[in-house]
Amino acid sequence: MKIPVVKNILKANQQVANENRCLFMEKGIYVMNLMSSPGAGKTSLLERTLSSLKDRYRIGVIEGDIQDTCDSDRIAALDIQTVQINTGGACHLDATMILQALYSLDLDNLDMVIVENVGNLVCPAEFDIGENDKMMILSVTEGDDKPLKYPLMFSLSSALLINKTDLLPYVNFDMKKAKDTIKKLRPDIKIFDVSCKDGNGLDAWYDWLEKRIKAFKAG
Amino acid sequence: MKIPVVKNILKANQQVANENRCLFMEKGIYVMNLMSSPGAGKTSLLERTLSSLKDRYRIGVIEGDIQDTCDSDRIAALDIQTVQINTGGACHLDATMILQALYSLDLDNLDMVIVENVGNLVCPAEFDIGENDKMMILSVTEGDDKPLKYPLMFSLSSALLINKTDLLPYVNFDMKKAKDTIKKLRPDIKIFDVSCKDGNGLDAWYDWLEKRIKAFKAG
Repeated sequence: MKIPVVKNILKANQQVANENRCLFMEKGIYVMNLMSSPGAGKTSLLERTLSSLKDRYRIGVIEGDIQDTCDSDRIAALDIQTVQINTGGACHLDATMILQALYSLDLDNLDMVIVENVGNLVCPAEFDIGENDKMMILSVTEGDDKPLKYPLMFSLSSALLINKTDLLPYVNFDMKKAKDTIKKLRPDIKIFDVSCKDGNGLDAWYDWLEKRIKAFKAG
Repeated sequence: MKIPVVKNILKANQQVANENRCLFMEKGIYVMNLMSSPGAGKTSLLERTLSSLKDRYRIGVIEGDIQDTCDSDRIAALDIQTVQINTGGACHLDATMILQALYSLDLDNLDMVIVENVGNLVCPAEFDIGENDKMMILSVTEGDDKPLKYPLMFSLSSALLINKTDLLPYVNFDMKKAKDTIKKLRPDIKIFDVSCKDGNGLDAWYDWLEKRIKAFKAG
């Protein structure tokens, strides 16, 4: 009885995601869906990325959290159009939540929307929201076995940021092992080793993201 | 349309969880449901806890993972009865999965079953599996804002282990702020500051867990 229900939910979600995608295309807005476990560094990455790109691109942010506005407060402090979605318990964002949030953004004056999904290494990957790219963060403190144990998100992400590299001396994380597993799940994934704490490695990420925006804008 | 479906799933789960609970009572088995984000240290905690208690208690372990047997291989290496549940995508264990796994355990010769849930700070808390206690781990690398952002699991857990305290000098984690938030969510929660890497703080955890087992056995 359970599988058909889940399939129906995913099918309904896909229809709305397709509508979102058409709207984004029409408005010329590049959309990134940023996912990770809780505490891997999504909001810290956003703060740095927005500071780097906001003078050249008009960016809106949709913050997904079960409750509270900690993260959207941090983003709004950067003078960025921000919408908070409180899922009230749900462990992921779906396309309908995004559609509803879009009414609060000035879509005619945006180049990019970044969606910060609920912190969860599983469910967010299952729900298309109409994004151009799924991106994800894996923190070195989570362990090098996570790609093997939670493969779906890795296999669907265009880019992966391996964050908290400043903590590498203090944790047991085999970078080669992790990357070998990830490349098997998605051979063309772009991987960046970064520290959102000290900023190491982030320039390459900004450059790559900018190329994605430009490629999308060029059609 | 979505809420009634979810309610039906949870209601069906509760019925099976009640059956599991009756079975555990009948067999005199204390059951712990261990939950956390991916990589917070569930398997490392289990390895240490099993090594400490296995000479005095007959313990079985149910390992929940989306795929693979990394964790159950680590536990079975300690000469512990271990069952692996591969959820094939599902982000949590439910009562029916536990019921099915129980057939592989020698229930007449166990004092305790520890269930290591799928790494996820959201969904596992929603599904009763018939356990005596939900326990959870929060790693200091995840950040002190997590109780506020993911309140349900904290509010339902009898005990919380704040793990990776060896990394406190290198991360920005306000222990008082985290604990104040947690105590508001669940005033009677028992909190242990531990490092599963160097073993600090774990003796108090073993003692407390042993008291829980004894209290259950005493009825």
